Amino acid sequence: MSITVPQGFRASGVVAGLKASGRPDVAVVVNDGPRHDAAAVFTSNRVVAAPVTWTRQVLTDGRVDAVVLNSGGANACTGPQGFADTHVSAEHLAAALGVSASDVAVCSTGLIGELLPMDRLTAGIDAGVAALAGDGGEAAATAIMTTDTVSKQAVAAGDGWLVGGMAKGAGMLAPALATMLVVATTDAVADPATLDAALRDATAQTFDRVDSDGCMSTNDTVLLLASGASGVTPTVGELTDAVTAVCADLARQLVADAEGARHDIAVEVRSAASLADALEVARAVARNNLFKCAVFGGDPNWGRVLAAVGTTAAAFEPDQLDVSINGVQVCRAGGVGQDRSLVDLSDREVHVVVDLHAGAETATVWTNDLTHDYVHENSAYST
Amino acid sequence: MSITVPQGFRASGVVAGLKASGRPDVAVVVNDGPRHDAAAVFTSNRVVAAPVTWTRQVLTDGRVDAVVLNSGGANACTGPQGFADTHVSAEHLAAALGVSASDVAVCSTGLIGELLPMDRLTAGIDAGVAALAGDGGEAAATAIMTTDTVSKQAVAAGDGWLVGGMAKGAGMLAPALATMLVVATTDAVADPATLDAALRDATAQTFDRVDSDGCMSTNDTVLLLASGASGVTPTVGELTDAVTAVCADLARQLVADAEGARHDIAVEVRSAASLADALEVARAVARNNLFKCAVFGGDPNWGRVLAAVGTTAAAFEPDQLDVSINGVQVCRAGGVGQDRSLVDLSDREVHVVVDLHAGAETATVWTNDLTHDYVHENSAYST
Repeated sequence: MSITVPQGFRASGVVAGLKASGRPDVAVVVNDGPRHDAAAVFTSNRVVAAPVTWTRQVLTDGRVDAVVLNSGGANACTGPQGFADTHVSAEHLAAALGVSASDVAVCSTGLIGELLPMDRLTAGIDAGVAALAGDGGEAAATAIMTTDTVSKQAVAAGDGWLVGGMAKGAGMLAPALATMLVVATTDAVADPATLDAALRDATAQTFDRVDSDGCMSTNDTVLLLASGASGVTPTVGELTDAVTAVCADLARQLVADAEGARHDIAVEVRSAASLADALEVARAVARNNLFKCAVFGGDPNWGRVLAAVGTTAAAFEPDQLDVSINGVQVCRAGGVGQDRSLVDLSDREVHVVVDLHAGAETATVWTNDLTHDYVHENSAYST
Repeated sequence: MSITVPQGFRASGVVAGLKASGRPDVAVVVNDGPRHDAAAVFTSNRVVAAPVTWTRQVLTDGRVDAVVLNSGGANACTGPQGFADTHVSAEHLAAALGVSASDVAVCSTGLIGELLPMDRLTAGIDAGVAALAGDGGEAAATAIMTTDTVSKQAVAAGDGWLVGGMAKGAGMLAPALATMLVVATTDAVADPATLDAALRDATAQTFDRVDSDGCMSTNDTVLLLASGASGVTPTVGELTDAVTAVCADLARQLVADAEGARHDIAVEVRSAASLADALEVARAVARNNLFKCAVFGGDPNWGRVLAAVGTTAAAFEPDQLDVSINGVQVCRAGGVGQDRSLVDLSDREVHVVVDLHAGAETATVWTNDLTHDYVHENSAYST
């Protein structure tokens, strides 16, 4: 499924023993061509893991033949040895496939600050190569999971070509990507510049608008690989639409599986003077711990929404702000609106609308509530 | 104690019935002079409560004769009626004291978006005036508590003059003030401009460096009242030192009583290129939910510190970052340092040092861990 649905791709997921749990932890994705065009978007964190540094370099010529991904260790903050290990991983897969290491991307996820057990990883790569299959997408998607409870996959269809994608990520979801690894594939014919344009548009509207806990990872990588196997060349608009559809589907799955969350909260800002204003306000609400706790508690505490909006530099007048929660206009003109007790927060999905009455732009940022389980999962993650 | 220790002040705290708990909820502070100079600092939130709007106006001439403070309701986001209610409170106290309402400051704290029961509040003001006493500081400090578990008071001595202070606040502690009401008093002789300079210096180094949960309130107010009753005129430097000492003492008490917290975390950034860089990095770490959860779990997860540092625009090279937690240098030169298992997080106080190796500036921001109890208290606050 997913990344192996488009023609020209094989994938696998195997147990290499990186995870104490014994679950699958190494995935290999191969683009059999005929073309090997690629684009990528990386974390905007300035502290980046070795595989991000490596893969950025791989992408400079717009060609990727294969990807090795591992869970069970982020290989971040691991110094020169960590970078050497990433290099070895790429060389090892390249040798097994008969390609150049400079065309092999590497992605890692897991705990920061620990070196990877390289003997296990290289043996896992060998096993992954042996297991490569035209229907291996599901196995690959499973092998990149960390605290994810389900694998994330999506597919979109163009006219005679397809886009598939897989993602991992369940926490640290924040703008400019999340702790998130995504590989998307397409059998469309597209050069690296077209892929880059499509991918940047798609991530800006999808993954960049997920902000589960305001934290930003050192390892985030979104790869888009094109095999050209369909022989069809879509327009950049068509490609962007399909890639965006896959990314939106995956982003929604990430929110739905966020660590310990009980609610998925869509914070929609309307009537903003600019898109930047809309996003700033939506993010401020999405990151407000007090509001996120209130949603967990089933409390439509709109005062915390207004207090969050008030921290921004967006254009608005405080006495014109409206806030609705699940269709109940609890705040009107900056003051008390409908009775807050009318709000039903029993469903998982929550829709908050903040109307700034300052313009015509709209944006939605997705977040989650802040729960006991979030604290529990993240207080014990490395142990 | 505290605000009534300097000469020239009376205070009281009474039960007005604003709190369902039946605890004290109205405080009155009177400056009997001979002078009535004052200065104030307010929340930088753009959505401000009615009493903030009112009190800003009162402070324009640098004179305050009295203050009425209530817990049990923030009177924020309450529209024109909320402002009218604040006005009535000031008029009511002014009439009882025989002063001008334009010299009466008003502070409120509690839930946003609810009108105050004015009949109870005005009756409470009457009771508060009747209870005014030269040793009423303790009662006043108790009456302004919300989720605080203890009252916060502090005193500092100059040469022949004193400064006293009281504070409330246990959550929403964030830069540019916290959900925090502070009244400080002094019997020094000081004009409003001197008081203003001293107070701004003091708050910038104390309350502005407390960031318990990254949230910012609509009601934060810090008042400094000077009676001149000692007859001594300190230099602005002497006054600043004493006011800073009181504010620092109160700020530390706020951190120690933060909602649901198990740890007080001092995030110290060293060798920054500028003070702004030091503060930006310290705040990024202090606001990182994942790191705060890790501290709660007794897990010295320094990777989360680096991931937070990496989100800032401060000057540093990732491969030169050092991080110590409670004296153990867990990260050296951006990579693995001493064994993280050497870190002891069993004490309430935690000291994180991030060395940027980029300059000579240092700053410390105080925060708390993120706990089950924080989620619990803030998911049920309005119910």
